[in-house]
Amino acid sequence: MTDNPLIVFTPSGKRGRFAAGTPVLQAARALGVDIDSVCGGRAICGRCQITVGEGEFAKHGITSKASNVSEFSKVEERYDKLRGLAAGRRLSCQTKIIGDLVIDVPPESQVHKQVVRKEADTRAIELDPCTRLCFIEVEEPDMHKPSSDLERVYRALAEQWQIGNVTCELPIITELQKTLRKGEWKITAAVYSRAPGGGNRLVAIWPGFHDRAFGIAIDVGSTTIAAHLTNLSTGEVAASAGLMNPQIRFGEDLMSRVSYVMMNPGGEKEMTAAIREALNTLSVQVTQQAGIDLGDVLEVVLVGNPVMHHLFLGIDPTELGGAPFALATGLPLTVPARELDLKLNPGAFAYVLPCIAGHVGADTAGVVLSEAPHEQDEIMLAVDVGTNAEIVLGSKARLLACSSPTGPAFEGAQISCGQRAAPGAIERIRIDAETLEPRYKVIGCDLWSDQEGFEEAIAATGVTGICGSGIIEVIAEMYLAGVINQDGQVDGALAARNPRIEPYKRTFNYLVRDGEPRIQITQNDVRAIQLAKAALYAGVRLLMDKLGIDSVGKIRLAGAFGSHIDVKYAMILGLIPDCDLKFVQSAGNAAGTGARIALLNSKARDEIEAVVRRIEKIETAVEPLFQQHFVEAMAIPHKTAVFSELMKVVTLPKVKEVVTLGDDGGERRRRRRG
Amino acid sequence: MTDNPLIVFTPSGKRGRFAAGTPVLQAARALGVDIDSVCGGRAICGRCQITVGEGEFAKHGITSKASNVSEFSKVEERYDKLRGLAAGRRLSCQTKIIGDLVIDVPPESQVHKQVVRKEADTRAIELDPCTRLCFIEVEEPDMHKPSSDLERVYRALAEQWQIGNVTCELPIITELQKTLRKGEWKITAAVYSRAPGGGNRLVAIWPGFHDRAFGIAIDVGSTTIAAHLTNLSTGEVAASAGLMNPQIRFGEDLMSRVSYVMMNPGGEKEMTAAIREALNTLSVQVTQQAGIDLGDVLEVVLVGNPVMHHLFLGIDPTELGGAPFALATGLPLTVPARELDLKLNPGAFAYVLPCIAGHVGADTAGVVLSEAPHEQDEIMLAVDVGTNAEIVLGSKARLLACSSPTGPAFEGAQISCGQRAAPGAIERIRIDAETLEPRYKVIGCDLWSDQEGFEEAIAATGVTGICGSGIIEVIAEMYLAGVINQDGQVDGALAARNPRIEPYKRTFNYLVRDGEPRIQITQNDVRAIQLAKAALYAGVRLLMDKLGIDSVGKIRLAGAFGSHIDVKYAMILGLIPDCDLKFVQSAGNAAGTGARIALLNSKARDEIEAVVRRIEKIETAVEPLFQQHFVEAMAIPHKTAVFSELMKVVTLPKVKEVVTLGDDGGERRRRRRG
Repeated sequence: MTDNPLIVFTPSGKRGRFAAGTPVLQAARALGVDIDSVCGGRAICGRCQITVGEGEFAKHGITSKASNVSEFSKVEERYDKLRGLAAGRRLSCQTKIIGDLVIDVPPESQVHKQVVRKEADTRAIELDPCTRLCFIEVEEPDMHKPSSDLERVYRALAEQWQIGNVTCELPIITELQKTLRKGEWKITAAVYSRAPGGGNRLVAIWPGFHDRAFGIAIDVGSTTIAAHLTNLSTGEVAASAGLMNPQIRFGEDLMSRVSYVMMNPGGEKEMTAAIREALNTLSVQVTQQAGIDLGDVLEVVLVGNPVMHHLFLGIDPTELGGAPFALATGLPLTVPARELDLKLNPGAFAYVLPCIAGHVGADTAGVVLSEAPHEQDEIMLAVDVGTNAEIVLGSKARLLACSSPTGPAFEGAQISCGQRAAPGAIERIRIDAETLEPRYKVIGCDLWSDQEGFEEAIAATGVTGICGSGIIEVIAEMYLAGVINQDGQVDGALAARNPRIEPYKRTFNYLVRDGEPRIQITQNDVRAIQLAKAALYAGVRLLMDKLGIDSVGKIRLAGAFGSHIDVKYAMILGLIPDCDLKFVQSAGNAAGTGARIALLNSKARDEIEAVVRRIEKIETAVEPLFQQHFVEAMAIPHKTAVFSELMKVVTLPKVKEVVTLGDDGGERRRRRRG
Repeated sequence: MTDNPLIVFTPSGKRGRFAAGTPVLQAARALGVDIDSVCGGRAICGRCQITVGEGEFAKHGITSKASNVSEFSKVEERYDKLRGLAAGRRLSCQTKIIGDLVIDVPPESQVHKQVVRKEADTRAIELDPCTRLCFIEVEEPDMHKPSSDLERVYRALAEQWQIGNVTCELPIITELQKTLRKGEWKITAAVYSRAPGGGNRLVAIWPGFHDRAFGIAIDVGSTTIAAHLTNLSTGEVAASAGLMNPQIRFGEDLMSRVSYVMMNPGGEKEMTAAIREALNTLSVQVTQQAGIDLGDVLEVVLVGNPVMHHLFLGIDPTELGGAPFALATGLPLTVPARELDLKLNPGAFAYVLPCIAGHVGADTAGVVLSEAPHEQDEIMLAVDVGTNAEIVLGSKARLLACSSPTGPAFEGAQISCGQRAAPGAIERIRIDAETLEPRYKVIGCDLWSDQEGFEEAIAATGVTGICGSGIIEVIAEMYLAGVINQDGQVDGALAARNPRIEPYKRTFNYLVRDGEPRIQITQNDVRAIQLAKAALYAGVRLLMDKLGIDSVGKIRLAGAFGSHIDVKYAMILGLIPDCDLKFVQSAGNAAGTGARIALLNSKARDEIEAVVRRIEKIETAVEPLFQQHFVEAMAIPHKTAVFSELMKVVTLPKVKEVVTLGDDGGERRRRRRG
């Protein structure tokens, strides 16, 4: 008796002996080798491609060669003709074992392939979606052994895919008979493995073979809603779109929206309807961009800060507007997307990441999933700055989170010339320490204001205001140029040197640009930024105290604000604690990335749910130390070790004394820079 | 060391020793004694009442006396004052153990009490509802240890009721915060134990203490929809209501409704909307009758024939209109009631009993649950007659089911003077064999037509037609009086004896009542009933063949028709097989009773799901024997052993020969009665 041929799969190294004639895919399944398939071995989907190793594989003790498998079959020829098969590739479902083999499974044939992320220094996403497409051939009804169509579908799933314990969403049941008959008893079924309660849920069906399965990851921000249509088979982002949050009409910042609800009973219903409509608009946009049908969208994963989280779920956010800031629920939630009025595939499910605490939302859970502080050996600080700064600090060992009431100043609100980041907004600025003259760049124009052609280039939009990142820079530059002192007071004495320092009420303004509108920084603007940055720093500092540390190993700045600010200026102003500047990184829309990870990887949902449970939630409002840190952090710059490093790079002007206006309007000489 | 007192609970006999001071309820819980409680031992609900045994209980070896428990407490006094406590009754949650005790738990204090059914010879229903009310005290939010309200609700359920693995319906989450605050952190939660996938589901909440939990059992018949509002704590029917199925406007019988859909694409949506609207109308009616809120309705259980089953679920029933009669699904279904557009408590769940086969619906599953053929030692036949006769035959050992196409004749349709059972319809009739004169009773009047005052009594409605049970009697009486022969032919020769035998086209009619309208039985009417009864009998006979039996032990006639016909006439006509008449019973609305059992008892759902799986489904359309039986069963009466018994009771007139009209219109003499 001859031994059965030995088959070794790479890269997994899994090996076993199989009878000659066994299809390679079947051998792979038996060994638990990760090879994708939608059609279940019918040479339709082309997902199960492999290459046959050729040569002697001393390590495995075998000689593998192309002639050790069955010849390229008619079925593969047809597939090659229809959809193309790269040289050397075989369909493992059609390739039969003849002799010893080393079979390579290329990454694109693996279900659990790695999806590389744009950002360096971040984990790749392992594909492990909760939704699986299964092509099935369903028995036709037979009056001699009556059974319902759905029972025969379940039987096909069990027999052809070993998927049991299935229930079915009602909107799918209503479409079942037409679909089966249209597909002539061959359909593709989408099975979702994380429905509430457990078991498998039949969530979508198509007649015949269907291999498009998509999900949308959505970050519902207070200002912007961002949606990423993602291919559940490849992990690729097929289309992205953003939309201003339509709730802005109910109030510019979060708390004013909560106030709207408080003042207008039932107002939360309007806001819920507005946000859900926006989610549907985005879904249509991204599917049209990608040229797919809304029915191909089988999942949606949502993140958002607590107020947005409550509003898109239809929960009145009033309780979040005052102490004790109780969430209705912070638990992860899986609900049919149709219950959120989302018009996707009618059986699609929505997954909402857990919230961490009353002011630390599912968006922060997304940041955690994306930046993985819980996997770090050294301390990582992750900050998502919005109306509140949501702060996570810690490492493998211990993780803390809090929210700090920065207010909307960083978003450009409550700043006299502040505006949202949009064309026409100043985003970069430099102030000459000698002349006190500014030069700046606006969004939508590559030129600096002192470059030729600037005025022509911006003619269409004009210069309309200063966005969040611009405000950080202007305050920092004002400080570096000596226009404001460490207490944040504008030095009126400088009015003599440059008329841009203008008296206004009892203080002085700094005029950035004359014209319509006049763009200037008022003393109040400086105060607003000081308050915001002090709040942020105090929150971070509070968590550092809890951990007993004085500096952090890595900083991740998430969100729109975090992506646009120059971290150097953030450190000059003292927004963030001591950290080697090269370990301070923008994390982009980390909340959205976290949503995408949860969309693509079922275990990532378990992971974030477990991590959120063990995060220690700190409520700044009840921590006396927070107030103390807050007061101390008002000065510019907050003293840090790194700051002195920074000072070596940027040259501070020599300022002897600072002149401010006293209560009587008269000049007062105050401090000297030491 | 003294022994702890010994406590014996009756009737369960469970016993154990507990430290003095232990509340009786707590001891009961520890022993698994079935004592109800909604308030969780807070002396609010009064469900946990017990009586303390007094005297020597030799069997248990103890002396129990009132002084062996703590004195009647202030709390019990308050409860007695507010809600009343019968003499000798104690609240077990407030009664503490002092010495040895025999504690009797009266039936009304047991969760799993027996609900006695009206019908004799039927199983009592054991109360074991899927929905449980739990009064809980929820921790208030605390900024020092932030957690969401829902998490604290789950914690309360776990700690105060040992209920874990809970998820929550979205519409309940949206109401949570208001309810908690309105109830000052005391709420009543309804927990449903059979949500799809498994686990416990939080389906309703009320501020404070709430002890009303109801369900509605609904039988969606082709003609009538019947709803029974049932108290989930007591099992009592609190209110019942019926409504004509609004789908009648789409077609009188089932198949014409299927035709409507076939002819009007999308017509199933209209019908689904109509039926769901009717279900909502009924829900409002029964809740108003009982003086409860729609929000107190936490469950609905639905049964119906396959077409109705599909329509209320929103499934196009077209496939049921032709071979192979495939159901979209026959599986049991649990869905949020709101997905069926039912306006009950927003978290309420609907449970739909399984269908048995393409023409044997969830209504028959209800009949099985109610009549329990699967628990019988001897063979039981259960028949539900509608447009189809749904037939179940068997015993513990083996159970078969089929549907037989009786057509709507038994419901009064396709009968010239047929009508639905309603005031004015003839329901009883006798024909004098000598004079051939009829006398009859109509629905809504207690007098027979030959009694004084009859015409005055019926003046309001008139005599409008003949209902299903009346038709059976009139045909049987026509046969007994010799007006028709065994072949069902009207004997035209009798026209000479009584002008009620009138020539009509090529046949003769029998005039029951002259006037407006004229009520007569045509030859076609007789044929329609012959076809219907032959179909019914053939179906039953086919199943008897499969079981290899010639007679059955018990017959249950379910449904409106089955409830109203006189079983003697059913046997004269040969509708049903040989069976001792005293074991032939009407089962009333057995389908609706089955729905009520499933509503009240969680295990009954497991039971019927298991039984339906093992029922052998026979499709009459593919059984050659069915045709043969059908042809043979056309004659009146179908010969049976019991028939000869019957004939001893009813005296057949001596008829020498039967005259009918030949094709040429001339009289033909045909058969003699032997």
